Amino acid sequence: MTSGSIRADGQTDILLLSGGGGGARLAAGLHAATGGEHFSVVTNTGDDFEHLGLMICPDTDSVLYALSQQIDPVRGWGREGESWQVFDELTQLGGPDWFQLGDKDLALHLIRAALLAEGRSLSEVTAILARRLGVASAASIMPATEDRVRTRVMTSQGEMAFQEYFVKHRCEPQLTAVRYEGIAAAKPSPSLVGLLAGAASRSIDVVLGPSNPFLSLAPILDLPGMADLLRERARRVIAVSPIVAGQALKGPAAKIMSELGLSVSAAGWMEWMADRYPELIDVWVWDERDHALADATRIAHPNIVVTDTIMSDRERAQQFAEWILGVSGDGD
Amino acid sequence: MTSGSIRADGQTDILLLSGGGGGARLAAGLHAATGGEHFSVVTNTGDDFEHLGLMICPDTDSVLYALSQQIDPVRGWGREGESWQVFDELTQLGGPDWFQLGDKDLALHLIRAALLAEGRSLSEVTAILARRLGVASAASIMPATEDRVRTRVMTSQGEMAFQEYFVKHRCEPQLTAVRYEGIAAAKPSPSLVGLLAGAASRSIDVVLGPSNPFLSLAPILDLPGMADLLRERARRVIAVSPIVAGQALKGPAAKIMSELGLSVSAAGWMEWMADRYPELIDVWVWDERDHALADATRIAHPNIVVTDTIMSDRERAQQFAEWILGVSGDGD
Repeated sequence: MTSGSIRADGQTDILLLSGGGGGARLAAGLHAATGGEHFSVVTNTGDDFEHLGLMICPDTDSVLYALSQQIDPVRGWGREGESWQVFDELTQLGGPDWFQLGDKDLALHLIRAALLAEGRSLSEVTAILARRLGVASAASIMPATEDRVRTRVMTSQGEMAFQEYFVKHRCEPQLTAVRYEGIAAAKPSPSLVGLLAGAASRSIDVVLGPSNPFLSLAPILDLPGMADLLRERARRVIAVSPIVAGQALKGPAAKIMSELGLSVSAAGWMEWMADRYPELIDVWVWDERDHALADATRIAHPNIVVTDTIMSDRERAQQFAEWILGVSGDGD
Repeated sequence: MTSGSIRADGQTDILLLSGGGGGARLAAGLHAATGGEHFSVVTNTGDDFEHLGLMICPDTDSVLYALSQQIDPVRGWGREGESWQVFDELTQLGGPDWFQLGDKDLALHLIRAALLAEGRSLSEVTAILARRLGVASAASIMPATEDRVRTRVMTSQGEMAFQEYFVKHRCEPQLTAVRYEGIAAAKPSPSLVGLLAGAASRSIDVVLGPSNPFLSLAPILDLPGMADLLRERARRVIAVSPIVAGQALKGPAAKIMSELGLSVSAAGWMEWMADRYPELIDVWVWDERDHALADATRIAHPNIVVTDTIMSDRERAQQFAEWILGVSGDGD
């Protein structure tokens, strides 16, 4: 299966498109597997929101924490060894308590606010935060766009902001549609465009993390020009299924697929992605638990490869990342 | 000396103009002495500033904490039993560490930010915070103005914002002048105007707390129309000297007076105040340690009264407040 490593020539960049959760785990795995060399992560900004006067970037922060090995491995978000002094007092004083904010996490949001108030761009701020958190090497983490894009969901209980749906309502309302407010006027972030344009002498392999396609990948891939940019510049695009044996490992992806009338399977996910982003994805990575379905589907879609995609800890994430670096893409 | 209590008729409101420090101590004393009935505090907003994306109102907060009996009695600012988890992490991450922010304090700033983001006015927000902190009774705490006024100091090291001078530079640069940016276009807060206009059937005694005249009182009293409003509506205005035996109990008042070429004494303070706000102040309260100077000065200024003004703890603050409520103002 690993007929040739992506990195064998040392001339290939790896670019991961990521939400939080599984995307952040894979980000940490790829960071460990590449040593951070020529490795970049583009983070979803559709979940970003303003809260308590601060700009909060949940997916970017999950990647920052994952790459600096400070993410809480149990919760899968926020900082390890977190304390809750401010949040306790906030709750005590009747402040908004639907979004949990740990003390260490809050320190990062405050520094981001200070840097943004100085007039720095979100990309610059993210790069500074990565350095301050001690993300090793030259790996860069960049928000998908500098422009304001906000994921909003239409549900059985009306339209609401993503965080309201995700945190306040725990994804309980039935989802009927998703829209990305502001995306028509948004541009891919200059740092990402620069990375794609600048590395003319290098090839780029793009990995779509096992992130929620509707809530994490679409707000990146639907940015005007983004899919074309990737089609044009990527040597190949490798997409990792977030659906394993008919279930999402975490989060509402399976529930949403079902509510949108899709088949809740790696095949259903692949069909939706291939339909929405035609000719973008070259290699489809499914979990080995779906090998039978993969065999059946491979007749029409030869570029499905299977492996153990479940990143239960850092070591497994690194092993999976190494497998991705070595994936041949020729389907067996 | 106490020929008749201000409150004997039950028809007099007490309005304190206050900075932090001594003003906040007197605020707590008057709150205890009045039971909070018909007692209001107007707080200086010249020290307010934006930090880490949040609006911080140091003097208002000191009064909020003093009246809710949650102020740290040793530091004289911030919350009692404070923790520093966020600040430690902020420092660790190389964030701005010149302004100390405790966890409990930060919770208040975050709630203020959330309420301001909802479009509420600073007066409304302050009233809500007072309730949430459990400030007993109907006592109201109101910022002097809703408009942006920012105290700036001209010093030997150039012009700087008040907090920069006060906290970052610890009042070390020599001060040559003070200005209140934005004050010409600012108006006294509607809640204060309403209080002064609305209580036509009641008389109002105004107390100027032992606060820094340049940094705490002037940003209130220099608001266009404010001094006239007080002259018109106050039955009398009682000013408490921040200078005791040639020294300020806390803060840079004495140092600034010296740098501005004033006599560093209760007499020097009185002269500056009487010159800047002619016919505003009816009763001058000096500390008993200055009784000899008071006797000598009383020839020209009969309305000087002396007592022990040092509020070393809550009980002493309440006793002093009770003395103020009973002050006859006729000079002996």
